[in-house]
Amino acid sequence: MGIKPFSDKVLIKPISGPETTKGGIIIPETVSSDDMKAQEGEVLAVGTGRLQKDGSVIPLIAKKGDRVIFLDHGATEVSVEGEDCFLLEEYSILAILES
Amino acid sequence: MGIKPFSDKVLIKPISGPETTKGGIIIPETVSSDDMKAQEGEVLAVGTGRLQKDGSVIPLIAKKGDRVIFLDHGATEVSVEGEDCFLLEEYSILAILES
Amino acid sequence: MGIKPFSDKVLIKPISGPETTKGGIIIPETVSSDDMKAQEGEVLAVGTGRLQKDGSVIPLIAKKGDRVIFLDHGATEVSVEGEDCFLLEEYSILAILES
Amino acid sequence: MGIKPFSDKVLIKPISGPETTKGGIIIPETVSSDDMKAQEGEVLAVGTGRLQKDGSVIPLIAKKGDRVIFLDHGATEVSVEGEDCFLLEEYSILAILES
Amino acid sequence: MGIKPFSDKVLIKPISGPETTKGGIIIPETVSSDDMKAQEGEVLAVGTGRLQKDGSVIPLIAKKGDRVIFLDHGATEVSVEGEDCFLLEEYSILAILES
Amino acid sequence: MGIKPFSDKVLIKPISGPETTKGGIIIPETVSSDDMKAQEGEVLAVGTGRLQKDGSVIPLIAKKGDRVIFLDHGATEVSVEGEDCFLLEEYSILAILES
Amino acid sequence: MGIKPFSDKVLIKPISGPETTKGGIIIPETVSSDDMKAQEGEVLAVGTGRLQKDGSVIPLIAKKGDRVIFLDHGATEVSVEGEDCFLLEEYSILAILES
Repeated sequence: MGIKPFSDKVLIKPISGPETTKGGIIIPETVSSDDMKAQEGEVLAVGTGRLQKDGSVIPLIAKKGDRVIFLDHGATEVSVEGEDCFLLEEYSILAILES
Repeated sequence: MGIKPFSDKVLIKPISGPETTKGGIIIPETVSSDDMKAQEGEVLAVGTGRLQKDGSVIPLIAKKGDRVIFLDHGATEVSVEGEDCFLLEEYSILAILES
Repeated sequence: MGIKPFSDKVLIKPISGPETTKGGIIIPETVSSDDMKAQEGEVLAVGTGRLQKDGSVIPLIAKKGDRVIFLDHGATEVSVEGEDCFLLEEYSILAILES
Repeated sequence: MGIKPFSDKVLIKPISGPETTKGGIIIPETVSSDDMKAQEGEVLAVGTGRLQKDGSVIPLIAKKGDRVIFLDHGATEVSVEGEDCFLLEEYSILAILES
Repeated sequence: MGIKPFSDKVLIKPISGPETTKGGIIIPETVSSDDMKAQEGEVLAVGTGRLQKDGSVIPLIAKKGDRVIFLDHGATEVSVEGEDCFLLEEYSILAILES
Repeated sequence: MGIKPFSDKVLIKPISGPETTKGGIIIPETVSSDDMKAQEGEVLAVGTGRLQKDGSVIPLIAKKGDRVIFLDHGATEVSVEGEDCFLLEEYSILAILES
Repeated sequence: MGIKPFSDKVLIKPISGPETTKGGIIIPETVSSDDMKAQEGEVLAVGTGRLQKDGSVIPLIAKKGDRVIFLDHGATEVSVEGEDCFLLEEYSILAILES
C-alpha cells in the first residue's frame, strides 16, 4: 500500500544532521523565529495539485526526488516502511537544492 | 436512516492503533504541532461538494471507501450504528493510502 | 406572526437526547473540540439566500423539514410558540439525516 | 434633522421585554454564546447600500418598518427623539418577524 | 497650508456634548461595546477615494460639510488651526444627520 | 549610493516638533489609539508601485517632496546621510499637507 | 550543489555592521517595532516567481546581486559555503540600495 498526498500536500523524508548536507549548505540547529525548524529532506511523493475556485487543478511545482529545505511547522509525522516522514503543504518548502 | 455530509464535509470512520495499518505506514501516537492528532480512517460518505461564489458546486475529491490519513482537529464525533465516526471538512485529509 | 431567517440563516428546532435519534446515529454528549456542541435538529425555516458580491442571491441548500446534525456555536436561542429553537448560519449544518 | 444610516448600516429601535413579543416568539434573556445579546426591534431607517469593489451599490434587504431579531454586538447606541436606538450593520439582523 | 486626507481617509471635527446635538439625536456618553466611542462631528475634508485592485479610484460617499455620527476607534488626532480634529477611515462613519 | 523603496514602500523624513508645523496644523504628542504615533514628514522617495495579482503594477499616489502626516507603526528606521528616516507602506500616510 | 529558492522566496547574504554600509545609509542597531530587525544584505538567488490563482507565474522583482534592506522576521538561516544567509519571502525586502 502506497501513500498519495492529498491536494497541495507533499510527503518528505527528512535527512538529518549537518554532516549529510552536500555542497556546503548547512542548516543551523537553532533557528530564530516562530518555533519553526528548517530541515533538509527528499520529496517522496506529491499531491494531485491545488484545487482552484473555478474547479481546475494546478499541479504542484515540487517533484518526487527533489532535495529540499523545508519548515516542519504544521507537519504531520508518519512512518513509511520504518522511515520517519512528514506530510505538509508544498508552501512549507523554502528552497530546492540543485545537484 | 442514513447520514449525508453537508457541503464540503466528509464522514470518516477512524481505524485505530498502529497494528491495523497496512503497507508499513504508521502514524506515531504523539504528533508534534498544534494539538492536532493524525489518524488513519475510511471514508464512509462525502458531501455534495463545495459551493462556489458563482453558485456552482465542485464535487469533492475523496470518495466513499478511500483509506485516508486525516487530522481530527475541528472534527465532530458521531456514533453511526455503534461505530465512532468523525464529521469533518475534506481539507482535513492529508493523504490517501493506495492499495 | 411567523419568523423568517435573514440571508444565510436557518431556524432549527433541536431534538435532544440520544434516545430520540433514529437509524443508529448517536451524537455523544461530550464533543472534543473548540467548545462546540453538535446536536440533532429539524429545520423549521430557511433564509432567502446568500447575497453574492455581484448582487445575485444563491438559495440555501437546506430545506424546511430536513433532519440535520448541526453545531450550536454562535447560535442564537429563540423560543417559537413554546419550543426552544436556534437561529444560526447554514454553514453550521454538518450533515443531513436521510430517512 | 433626521438620521440616515451610512453604507450597510441600519437604525433599529429595540422593543424590550418578552411581553411585547407577538406570535409566540420569545427571545430568552440569557443567550449562550460570545457575549452577544439577541433582541427584537423595529427598523427605523436603512443605509444607502453596500459599496461593491467595482463601485456599484447593492441596496440593503431590510426595509423601514421591518420587525427583526438582531444581535446588539458592535452596535452603537443613539437616542433619537428620546428613544434609545442602535446603529449597526445589516448583517446583525438574524430574522424578520412576519405578521 | 491645507490638509488633504489620503485615499479613503476623512478629516472630521467633533462636535462635543449632547447639548449641541440638533433634532433630538443624542449620543450617550457611555457606549457599550469594544472601547469605541461614538461622536457627532462635521466632515472638513475627504480623501481622493478608495484605490481599487484594477487601479481605478472610487470617490468617497461623505462630502465636506456633512454632519455625521462616527466611531473614533483608530482615529488620529490632529489640531487644525486650533481645532481638535480626527483623521480616520470613511468606514468609521455610521450615519449622516440630515437637516 | 541612493535608496529606492521596494514595491509599495515609501521613504519619509520625519519633521519633528509642533513648532515646525506650518499652516496651523499640530499633531498632539500623545495620540490615543493602538500605540501608533502620528508624525509629520517629507516623502524622500517612493516605491515602483503595488504589484497586482495579474502582474501589472499600479504607481503609488504619494510623490517625492510631499509633506504628509503618517503613522510610524510598523516603520523601519534608517539613517540616510545622517538624517533619521522611515521606510513604511504608503498606506501609513493619513493626509497630505498642501501649501 | 546549488540552492534555488522556491516560489516567492529569496536567498540573501546579510552584510553586517554599520561600517560596511556605503552611501551614508545606516540601519540603527535597535529598531522600534514588532521584534523585527532590519538588515542590509546582498541577494544571492531568487525564486521562480509567485504562483497566481490562474496557474501563471509572476517573476520576482529582486535580482541576483541587488543590495537590499530587508526585515529578518520569519527568515530561515542557512549556511551556504560557510556564509550565514537567510531564506525569506521577497516581500521582506524594504528597499534596494542603488550604486
